[in-house]
Amino acid sequence: MGPNSNELPSPLRGIIPPLVTPLLDRDTLDEAGLERLVEHILAGGVHGLFILGTTGEAPSLSYRLRHDLIERVCRQVAARVPVLVGITDTSFVESTNIARKAKDAGAQAVVLAPPYYFPAGQLELLEYLKHLTAELPLPVFLYNMPSHTKLVFELETMRAAADLPHVAGIKDSSGNMLYFRRLQGLLADHPDFSILVGPEELMAEAVLLGGHGGISGGANLLPRLYVELYNAARAKDLPRVEELQAKVMELSTCIYRVGRYQSSFLKGLKCALSCVGICSDFMAEPFHRFRQAEHEVIEQYVKKLGITPSGGN
Amino acid sequence: MGPNSNELPSPLRGIIPPLVTPLLDRDTLDEAGLERLVEHILAGGVHGLFILGTTGEAPSLSYRLRHDLIERVCRQVAARVPVLVGITDTSFVESTNIARKAKDAGAQAVVLAPPYYFPAGQLELLEYLKHLTAELPLPVFLYNMPSHTKLVFELETMRAAADLPHVAGIKDSSGNMLYFRRLQGLLADHPDFSILVGPEELMAEAVLLGGHGGISGGANLLPRLYVELYNAARAKDLPRVEELQAKVMELSTCIYRVGRYQSSFLKGLKCALSCVGICSDFMAEPFHRFRQAEHEVIEQYVKKLGITPSGGN
Amino acid sequence: MGPNSNELPSPLRGIIPPLVTPLLDRDTLDEAGLERLVEHILAGGVHGLFILGTTGEAPSLSYRLRHDLIERVCRQVAARVPVLVGITDTSFVESTNIARKAKDAGAQAVVLAPPYYFPAGQLELLEYLKHLTAELPLPVFLYNMPSHTKLVFELETMRAAADLPHVAGIKDSSGNMLYFRRLQGLLADHPDFSILVGPEELMAEAVLLGGHGGISGGANLLPRLYVELYNAARAKDLPRVEELQAKVMELSTCIYRVGRYQSSFLKGLKCALSCVGICSDFMAEPFHRFRQAEHEVIEQYVKKLGITPSGGN
Amino acid sequence: MGPNSNELPSPLRGIIPPLVTPLLDRDTLDEAGLERLVEHILAGGVHGLFILGTTGEAPSLSYRLRHDLIERVCRQVAARVPVLVGITDTSFVESTNIARKAKDAGAQAVVLAPPYYFPAGQLELLEYLKHLTAELPLPVFLYNMPSHTKLVFELETMRAAADLPHVAGIKDSSGNMLYFRRLQGLLADHPDFSILVGPEELMAEAVLLGGHGGISGGANLLPRLYVELYNAARAKDLPRVEELQAKVMELSTCIYRVGRYQSSFLKGLKCALSCVGICSDFMAEPFHRFRQAEHEVIEQYVKKLGITPSGGN
Repeated sequence: MGPNSNELPSPLRGIIPPLVTPLLDRDTLDEAGLERLVEHILAGGVHGLFILGTTGEAPSLSYRLRHDLIERVCRQVAARVPVLVGITDTSFVESTNIARKAKDAGAQAVVLAPPYYFPAGQLELLEYLKHLTAELPLPVFLYNMPSHTKLVFELETMRAAADLPHVAGIKDSSGNMLYFRRLQGLLADHPDFSILVGPEELMAEAVLLGGHGGISGGANLLPRLYVELYNAARAKDLPRVEELQAKVMELSTCIYRVGRYQSSFLKGLKCALSCVGICSDFMAEPFHRFRQAEHEVIEQYVKKLGITPSGGN
Repeated sequence: MGPNSNELPSPLRGIIPPLVTPLLDRDTLDEAGLERLVEHILAGGVHGLFILGTTGEAPSLSYRLRHDLIERVCRQVAARVPVLVGITDTSFVESTNIARKAKDAGAQAVVLAPPYYFPAGQLELLEYLKHLTAELPLPVFLYNMPSHTKLVFELETMRAAADLPHVAGIKDSSGNMLYFRRLQGLLADHPDFSILVGPEELMAEAVLLGGHGGISGGANLLPRLYVELYNAARAKDLPRVEELQAKVMELSTCIYRVGRYQSSFLKGLKCALSCVGICSDFMAEPFHRFRQAEHEVIEQYVKKLGITPSGGN
Repeated sequence: MGPNSNELPSPLRGIIPPLVTPLLDRDTLDEAGLERLVEHILAGGVHGLFILGTTGEAPSLSYRLRHDLIERVCRQVAARVPVLVGITDTSFVESTNIARKAKDAGAQAVVLAPPYYFPAGQLELLEYLKHLTAELPLPVFLYNMPSHTKLVFELETMRAAADLPHVAGIKDSSGNMLYFRRLQGLLADHPDFSILVGPEELMAEAVLLGGHGGISGGANLLPRLYVELYNAARAKDLPRVEELQAKVMELSTCIYRVGRYQSSFLKGLKCALSCVGICSDFMAEPFHRFRQAEHEVIEQYVKKLGITPSGGN
Repeated sequence: MGPNSNELPSPLRGIIPPLVTPLLDRDTLDEAGLERLVEHILAGGVHGLFILGTTGEAPSLSYRLRHDLIERVCRQVAARVPVLVGITDTSFVESTNIARKAKDAGAQAVVLAPPYYFPAGQLELLEYLKHLTAELPLPVFLYNMPSHTKLVFELETMRAAADLPHVAGIKDSSGNMLYFRRLQGLLADHPDFSILVGPEELMAEAVLLGGHGGISGGANLLPRLYVELYNAARAKDLPRVEELQAKVMELSTCIYRVGRYQSSFLKGLKCALSCVGICSDFMAEPFHRFRQAEHEVIEQYVKKLGITPSGGN
């Protein structure tokens, strides 16, 4: 019998895709699509699943739907891989509510970005982390996401937070590799602390020089590609890294850059998943699925890149 | 018998204080303090009451507590003045949930800032407004608050939004009076559209040149001061405006600038309310009440400024 | 004989237009246009002239041309009003070079925004001000312009700077009236310190409540309008203020909002000056004059607003 | 006889240190220090020298001193490696003036960041590049430096600029590796176009996956370290990369993070150069050399890291 996934690896390593949330309308899950999507991703050999993150449009969803999603995914995954649940919220109480829900449903960890309405100072942020992590029933990964929270975990704050009891790692989605490298340096004496990178385009180089893995959005579409790239990077097989990285960049430059707003990544990803028949491309406000013109552009790219639903990637 | 406050004036004019939310701990209302605070404010002759705004720490509160607050305040105010309820949320569905709650409790209007996690483009924002306002059971005031939402209602977006069925006005908290003046110009043909200003230090000049009033946070503490200043500005009594404005600036420079973070305004205001015995100064995370040293500074200011709980202002 | 303008009033009050720099090409002054423009402005009864500011495109001009401009304008003005010269530069030495040139040419004061390449901290900025002002041969007005310098003079920095020997006032172009009002409060004990406002749309309200005047860009085009508005505001004649303010807003909403970039103000102003035959609309890089389509829109507005070169405004 | 360095390699590859400008006071070069510094760097085997960049404090220097520096460095280097000269300026005319000076002194290329006062739109920026590059007598490297210019070369702008006649490459100092990777993808069909990275902490990973080299500030202090790291990365020798990268991170975490402002990097670097006796640590305003306390911290680090002037690194 293999390792019990209920015991979170320490440090957590590998590809942990941030699950897209399939929707039929703004408050209805695409249940069949969700099932297909989860199986599609797990078939790719990923090392975990992260639900209710930015890619999952969590802040745009009702709490009722978020609870429903947590239960469904945990039940379906059934401990095949660890499930991480986003609990980021402007309200401390709502964050702990979701965390308890996650624990009850059988998730293995939670993920927390800074509260994103009030502009807190770093000392206020650290005090918030002390109070909140003390109430959490599961290990917590901190989530650095300044483009959306407008509040960075400064290096000194992270250094202090890494010593808090439940803090197990960080997901850095800043895209700022200087920050990432300095963080590695500061936490060199915390070998169990997991340092994961957000942008999938940077996963390989993060891992090549000591990072533990990536929360790669494209792994919703092509899970095996990212797993293989991770493996190549961990094995320091540079020719293979370069070959696979080129495919990642093709996805990044084609699928994620249709449309004119910062929402292009999310819209493109959901649209492509719909093109290959995995799930609906409906998006929660303030976003909307691509209209016909952009849909056709994505469809062409999907064909050109040879993406198929069977996970044949 | 006076005018029925259930009919929202059009345009809404005057001082509509953004109610501080008195708390005993992070998920418990200070019920007695809340009652005292509401009566203290109404005794000042204000023209409305705005609950669950930024000053009310709404994004930091649990939904349960927000619902409780809506019910209590609407019941206590009992239509003496219009009650406006903040429904800003990153989730469309949760915004409409609070709006229905507000309608059921007897509130007269709702207030909506842009969703503040995903960075939407202006066309996405306008589409969001079209969809959301169509579902609202009450008139809605848009709330421009770029320092916290990081998303501005650009002038063209506001111009278009002003023609949507339920949109009754705007609260501009940008502090950017150039934006405010241009907005007045663009909406000159909408005489029923209410243009209110956020920062209390700018209320007088906003009203002197055609603005309709202010959502003045200091009116939690000194409601009559702001009402009198509004009246003087509306009457274009400049000597009186200058006399009262000096007091407003004294409050602003003393009470709101203790402490080192952007939270100084909120912490100072809640601390001062506690000093005069109106309500608790407990704050929801990510903030915390002033510690002893800052509390004593505020206490000295409160004495120096002669602020008393009896509303003797 | 009238007051000697070589003695700078203390505080400096009134309308001090920021002179547009008429150009024939990127390194050639439109000398005839410059002469017409200066006489047009002085005929409007302004209280000073500010050259080499943002409206004058100073950072885009060669030093040779800046020196030429300083000499020509000082000679032509011939002490009819005080001339203020912008010396803002990323290089301390170049700032003092221009200041000496200004002194030699007969200017009465200089104007200084923070150095705008390196992001200095406030203590670094204050030390810079101490060193630089000590070397200046003329009184200096500090210039708060965060949209372009990305560095604000924080209130505490201004408070300290106001006590430096040569510092005579501030021009606040932030558009943030909360900052402006707090500055007035902090400097209430400095009656000789001049507090001027940048955005012309806010000049009237600035003066109504104690500000000393404005650096109003529109006064290049309609100098008398701004002088009359200033006089009305100073006399607290509110009906007259409202009447004239409406014209200012018409200019602001029409002329300054053609085109899609932040350069719309400058392009519109220079284009309008060209439409009425005062000077060329050539702009220094990185900007370019409006093309035909926008030029025609501005031309229509100029006609509609009844702007004429004779200063008949 | 070796290759003639007057012919700029295409693409330019390797370590091109951004030269610190040694100063005795704000307008006086530390001539002896400059000579020592240049020889120290060249002894490390670098592939070029970049003068008058951000690390060289160019925007803070007088034009006279900049001209003096260009002449001295070009004369001393005497074509041993290519010299690149920063010509970034808010004034088009001054940029071309410096470029001509660079050409006359024997430099091989110039480096240009966007003009950094007026906030230009991307189309305005591209038009500026078209006009300016057409006037340049030397190949030009574009310099993406949003933290200081506040204006990014967006990907589409870079794609178009890469086809302009004199544009030979880009130095990306954004620290945003997602941008860097997408740029590589977009310019895959321009094999002669050099893509260099600014932050030295990211040089190795940039080169491992196809970047051409780095403008590494630390190479002022330890030129051989960066050259060896570049060579290891180019040879895809990962164990050696990891070993040397650890030293780079030690420098980054110790020397560059003393002091509280963004100026810590520059102050720390210049202070360390002074500790090992290479040149003076005087800095041009708005910065100032470290005071005694910080100097001692740097001195300890310099000893601990075993940095010696002999280039024994």
